[in-house]
Amino acid sequence: MDPAPPRRPLICLTCGDPAGIGPEVVVSAWASSPAHRRASLRVCAAPRMLRATLDSLPSSPRLAVREVAPDSLEPSSPETLLAIDPGSPGDPVPRGRITAAGGQAAVAALDSAFRTVMAAGGSGALVTGPLHKEALHAAGHDVPGHTEWLARACGLPDDAASMMLWLPPLVGGGDLGGKGLGVVHVTLHESLATAIGRLSTGGIVAAGNRLASLLAALLGRPPRIAVAALNPHGGEAGLFGDEESRLIRPAVEQLQAAGVTASGPFPADTLFLRAAQGAFDGIVALYHDQGHIPVKLLGMHRAVNITLGLPLVRTSVAHGTAFDIVGLGRADPSSMLAAIDAAVCLVECGWRGG
Amino acid sequence: MDPAPPRRPLICLTCGDPAGIGPEVVVSAWASSPAHRRASLRVCAAPRMLRATLDSLPSSPRLAVREVAPDSLEPSSPETLLAIDPGSPGDPVPRGRITAAGGQAAVAALDSAFRTVMAAGGSGALVTGPLHKEALHAAGHDVPGHTEWLARACGLPDDAASMMLWLPPLVGGGDLGGKGLGVVHVTLHESLATAIGRLSTGGIVAAGNRLASLLAALLGRPPRIAVAALNPHGGEAGLFGDEESRLIRPAVEQLQAAGVTASGPFPADTLFLRAAQGAFDGIVALYHDQGHIPVKLLGMHRAVNITLGLPLVRTSVAHGTAFDIVGLGRADPSSMLAAIDAAVCLVECGWRGG
Repeated sequence: MDPAPPRRPLICLTCGDPAGIGPEVVVSAWASSPAHRRASLRVCAAPRMLRATLDSLPSSPRLAVREVAPDSLEPSSPETLLAIDPGSPGDPVPRGRITAAGGQAAVAALDSAFRTVMAAGGSGALVTGPLHKEALHAAGHDVPGHTEWLARACGLPDDAASMMLWLPPLVGGGDLGGKGLGVVHVTLHESLATAIGRLSTGGIVAAGNRLASLLAALLGRPPRIAVAALNPHGGEAGLFGDEESRLIRPAVEQLQAAGVTASGPFPADTLFLRAAQGAFDGIVALYHDQGHIPVKLLGMHRAVNITLGLPLVRTSVAHGTAFDIVGLGRADPSSMLAAIDAAVCLVECGWRGG
Repeated sequence: MDPAPPRRPLICLTCGDPAGIGPEVVVSAWASSPAHRRASLRVCAAPRMLRATLDSLPSSPRLAVREVAPDSLEPSSPETLLAIDPGSPGDPVPRGRITAAGGQAAVAALDSAFRTVMAAGGSGALVTGPLHKEALHAAGHDVPGHTEWLARACGLPDDAASMMLWLPPLVGGGDLGGKGLGVVHVTLHESLATAIGRLSTGGIVAAGNRLASLLAALLGRPPRIAVAALNPHGGEAGLFGDEESRLIRPAVEQLQAAGVTASGPFPADTLFLRAAQGAFDGIVALYHDQGHIPVKLLGMHRAVNITLGLPLVRTSVAHGTAFDIVGLGRADPSSMLAAIDAAVCLVECGWRGG
């Protein structure tokens, strides 16, 4: 007997905080995404809020909004946005600023989308818009962001999840960014001095393995992983620090021994340029700014976060709520489009959160 | 009585190590530089070596080579390269690799160019090509590079000089790099942990003042200076480190009190993008890779080093000898062209080394 045909990916979007640019990038991305051909898209948000967003934009896409049930399997199309109402009682949310109502609406939508995705099993994926931490706090949710909320919803500790920054291939290519590039961080939200002190061979190996596994799924082949050096010129043979020989080179060797196509450590100032020109598929960055400075320069608007370590596919825009440009029609949907595309790819290849 | 008209700038180029791409970028830049209209250019190098370079290139510029005396004031033109022979006895230099002969030729040319520039007084400027530290050592010169050699020649300690990385405005502009951007570093060639430990308010203020003074000369107006933060998100109000409040903010305030248009600290991951889009003219970077990662991504081939702290105008290409592409016709002269242009501008505005 043939196996049952795989179900179409079911991709649930959220707008994040409705006071930010999330609703705008969601409606724009819905109208222009090529993903409708391969997947069924949903937006977990109040239909009224989505219609108000469409009405308020200077050059709005032609898009009807229709409510569907959470268990609907109806295909989606660029012409009609299918909304799942999170049913939050909800005060109206003033736009362009931090409010408790915005934080509350973001959590209600996330809760609805999470339940819909989990009910869809292996065919579901979550794509989240940007929220603001202070709005979450104002709404009484003591959680730093989406990722920790999801970890708790899965019964895992806050730090169970990490993320890969993904710069998808540029259509048309160009000098930089023609091939796609993934970046994981070994340390992230702590002082630079603390981050250096906490670097370990084990931490680098773990990050390299997560990166390799996710990129293998996205690219459909063994990825070429480079590990960044910590010190200038890669330490200049020990003259400028010993972390390269003491911690990083052993990690590269352990990754190689485990079958990962890994190399390094490489001086960080030229590594990202080489990777963007196609020499590597993924980079292990050792601290926050080492990875974020180049990713933002290479493609702030099209970068995507992909969550690692949770038992579901979840991608997210890499930008924030951008309260200062809400409603002006200037919000760029590239990151949301790329987040949808990455989610579809990961469902299709059977990846389940790493 | 009218003052004497200012003398035309006299710009002395060196090829650096003749085994590297220096001779190629010098002859290419000579043939295409618009600087001949405003300045008299010279190359301190053996005429025979320059002719051999022209003969060996796949698509060589049409360029005669003629020797001139060090004290000649003859104007230059794109058609005839004017060479000052450093008179090194000189073994022939094999190309594409590290040799004592290459290091020796580089030092002989540097010595000749330095003496020519100093004899020209306020109208002279030095523009150096790339050399290789190991070739210097092989030739018995115990000096890390051009800059320290020049400091010693001026009777100053090795660490008297520092440098600004300069990304000149892109002709035609584009999204990034339309306005020109200068970057100075507070710390440079030491381990990242050591660099963090050595950060001080005084060091940041000194770097900011040097940057502001040089950019004021280059741009002809008070520059807008931004100081980078050290920690992720600029320290997130003390959550990720206290260097921002303890060291950096006081430095910004001291710069402002001294009349510099300074601001910051700003999170480093978005600062370089904002600056490249025109928000700032100069950035004070706190450590090597914080400045070098973005400058290399924004324009590795057109970046220029400008030396600060020596009593002469000296600019340099920001790239290395690139032994692997010597003679292939692939070397990009953009950095040499930009280094010549910056040297002419600095002589014209009467800047004398900061």
